[in-house]
Amino acid sequence: MPSAKTQPARGMRDFLPEDVRKREYVIGVIKEVYERYGFEPLETPAAENIETLMGKYGEEGNQLIFKILKRGVHEGTGEADLALRYDLTVPLARVVAEYRDKLPKFFKRYQIQPVWRADRPARGRYREFYQCDVDVLGSRSMIVEAEIISASSEALTKLGFTDFTVRLNHRKVLTGILEMAGIPEEKHATALIALDKLDKIGKEGVLREFEAREVLTSNVAQELLALFETNQLEHLEQFIGAHPIGLEGIKDLREIISYVSSSAVQIDPSLARGLSYYTGAIMEMQVKDLAGSLGGGGRYDNLVGMFLGQNIPACGFSLGLERIIVVMSERDMFPVNLLRSPAEVMIAVWRDAAQDALSLASELRAQGLRVDVYPDRDSKLGPQISYASKRSIPFVAFIGEDERDKGLVVLKNLNTGQQETIDRKDVAGLVKVEVGNVE
Amino acid sequence: MPSAKTQPARGMRDFLPEDVRKREYVIGVIKEVYERYGFEPLETPAAENIETLMGKYGEEGNQLIFKILKRGVHEGTGEADLALRYDLTVPLARVVAEYRDKLPKFFKRYQIQPVWRADRPARGRYREFYQCDVDVLGSRSMIVEAEIISASSEALTKLGFTDFTVRLNHRKVLTGILEMAGIPEEKHATALIALDKLDKIGKEGVLREFEAREVLTSNVAQELLALFETNQLEHLEQFIGAHPIGLEGIKDLREIISYVSSSAVQIDPSLARGLSYYTGAIMEMQVKDLAGSLGGGGRYDNLVGMFLGQNIPACGFSLGLERIIVVMSERDMFPVNLLRSPAEVMIAVWRDAAQDALSLASELRAQGLRVDVYPDRDSKLGPQISYASKRSIPFVAFIGEDERDKGLVVLKNLNTGQQETIDRKDVAGLVKVEVGNVE
Repeated sequence: MPSAKTQPARGMRDFLPEDVRKREYVIGVIKEVYERYGFEPLETPAAENIETLMGKYGEEGNQLIFKILKRGVHEGTGEADLALRYDLTVPLARVVAEYRDKLPKFFKRYQIQPVWRADRPARGRYREFYQCDVDVLGSRSMIVEAEIISASSEALTKLGFTDFTVRLNHRKVLTGILEMAGIPEEKHATALIALDKLDKIGKEGVLREFEAREVLTSNVAQELLALFETNQLEHLEQFIGAHPIGLEGIKDLREIISYVSSSAVQIDPSLARGLSYYTGAIMEMQVKDLAGSLGGGGRYDNLVGMFLGQNIPACGFSLGLERIIVVMSERDMFPVNLLRSPAEVMIAVWRDAAQDALSLASELRAQGLRVDVYPDRDSKLGPQISYASKRSIPFVAFIGEDERDKGLVVLKNLNTGQQETIDRKDVAGLVKVEVGNVE
Repeated sequence: MPSAKTQPARGMRDFLPEDVRKREYVIGVIKEVYERYGFEPLETPAAENIETLMGKYGEEGNQLIFKILKRGVHEGTGEADLALRYDLTVPLARVVAEYRDKLPKFFKRYQIQPVWRADRPARGRYREFYQCDVDVLGSRSMIVEAEIISASSEALTKLGFTDFTVRLNHRKVLTGILEMAGIPEEKHATALIALDKLDKIGKEGVLREFEAREVLTSNVAQELLALFETNQLEHLEQFIGAHPIGLEGIKDLREIISYVSSSAVQIDPSLARGLSYYTGAIMEMQVKDLAGSLGGGGRYDNLVGMFLGQNIPACGFSLGLERIIVVMSERDMFPVNLLRSPAEVMIAVWRDAAQDALSLASELRAQGLRVDVYPDRDSKLGPQISYASKRSIPFVAFIGEDERDKGLVVLKNLNTGQQETIDRKDVAGLVKVEVGNVE
């Protein structure tokens, strides 16, 4: 009887070999694309000083942060001094403040690491999950937004997505719309939270929330919600009229659109994005068969200032690894050769030939083959071959008594069942040709 | 003035691009070698249920575990329900117990992930550090020990280490020696802790500890310590005499030695290794210029049983990424091309040519080049070129008014200072030849 619980902690996952290979494949593609866009890798610790994270993600965020107990005698007090990374953006802002003299004027970094949130676990929602972030710090140019949209889009395209959309909006446009609709500033946050749910709760739901929270009277709200269905910058501009902040947003969006050739990019005034630190353009990527987004981001010109005391403009985008993998798995988008066998050859072994088996393994590995050695030298040949076959290892090689002194090896192809005795020096070449591992 | 602390948490580190590239290089080499030995990747969550970890690493280990507060209303109680992964071996044992029906009879896995220990930070000792583990579960054969020693040795060799030694000992041999020396069983752990410090405190120090803890009288202790300087199995066998458990250990060591051709492997009876879960062979890898080891491991046949209620034999080895990097940095062992520039070409930009710049970037990226785009279109060309030069980007390309309609591009080689106007379609090819990025 098991003496301890053996499941991973709630909302967290073990990744067996096949899972890891899928994850590494997706991460590899994303990295390669980000590198071609001139982004450089950054890594930060899993744990941050607790004050680095608290207050950066709103009240709901604070609740979802995993907090780490102080060590030693302090453990009894229940005091926490560290917390697990909640996203990759706040640590980046801290890094930029800390190393500003060592970093280039425009710091383009990507970061692919896990984050932790004590959310209620649900399908596709985990307490430990990877984010794949790109950010550019140091420039207010809309070229940055364009490059970030292009890089993230290309990553999805390289993974095989052909049907995603990039929803694009702007915090200043939202401000303009809300003010022109007559919503007082102190109700903007409430209004945005309601609007953010348009997808989920529909127009009626948003209207009810507006009413319940006294955001707006019903007839203006109707007009407002109609506006949120447009994807024409002109309509938004008309509504915003001469609102100066709103018009700045319109101008930014127009510039971004002029830089990005992809037809996947669509203006969507109903996009609000929850995080409070966004100050400019905001964007989200979606596919039809997934509720929620594959990734999202935007401009946050004030966050670094919270650490540095001096603002550094910034814009970034985060792809959600877990959701990408969910959709790719459901759509069967992974390349077939990822599901490869653990080795190309297994060396069979027996009592008096363990040294021979190990030296053969060593020779084949030196020639670039992935080689397993059956460990149990008291086992008969039959079960050893069955084991290799069950593990989808295509070849079994062994040196019998007859072969040993003649420099020969028996090589069995488990796919064809064919067995031949060949020169020891020819084994690697023959296996490579068969498994397609030829340089 | 900064409004918040910007350093990483105590004992933890940020890795800027150059650091990440070094780490990824070392991890890549280790992975490649482990894969050639037929090991498959596994990943487990950063946090485990607290009861999974407590009690597995001795009393000192318990103290060093980072504990995570329960969420919500429980936060006030100071109760911890999760803890950060302390090593990769206990999570492996849990995984093997949980998925035993899905895993092969012999489970050969590698795992390269961070672990966390609330140790006092010191040079080369961090609170977050990576371990690179290989383990084989399901076999008692000494072929496993031999394969694990070979794989770890080959990883170090591929990284450029030519001078490491592999110290090899056996828990049963230690038991035999201690019993034949007349040390009562209840003092074995104390004796091993003292012996483990032989390197650091010398013979005199160990003798003093023996005396202080009443382990052994001085004259027998002298003889015992003399024995610990041998590297001959015969000497150990003579001392152990007919002690049956001790002789089992001698037999295992003899078998391992017969399988491993490397002269780096040396019998060392003074090797004890702290962790209490080892049951058989134990090993450690060292280089002269580093106090402590580059890695260590051994056989632990009973650990999985703590989760499964049924023992599964196991043996593993863990390479310490941080120490490997420390030595490689000090010895200047990293390949030069790791310190590469963030891009091969930077596209200069100005007010009316942003679209041109972005479409040129897109073309060059599609041809496999790493391309940066200067984001600030109000900047003069001079500062843009200086920026590229400072960042060691070898080429700057731009499309001026004269070039635009003729399909031409100005390409400046910042290494030679040479500037030429060439056909747009020839840019990628020319840059690739110069930077050596040709397939």
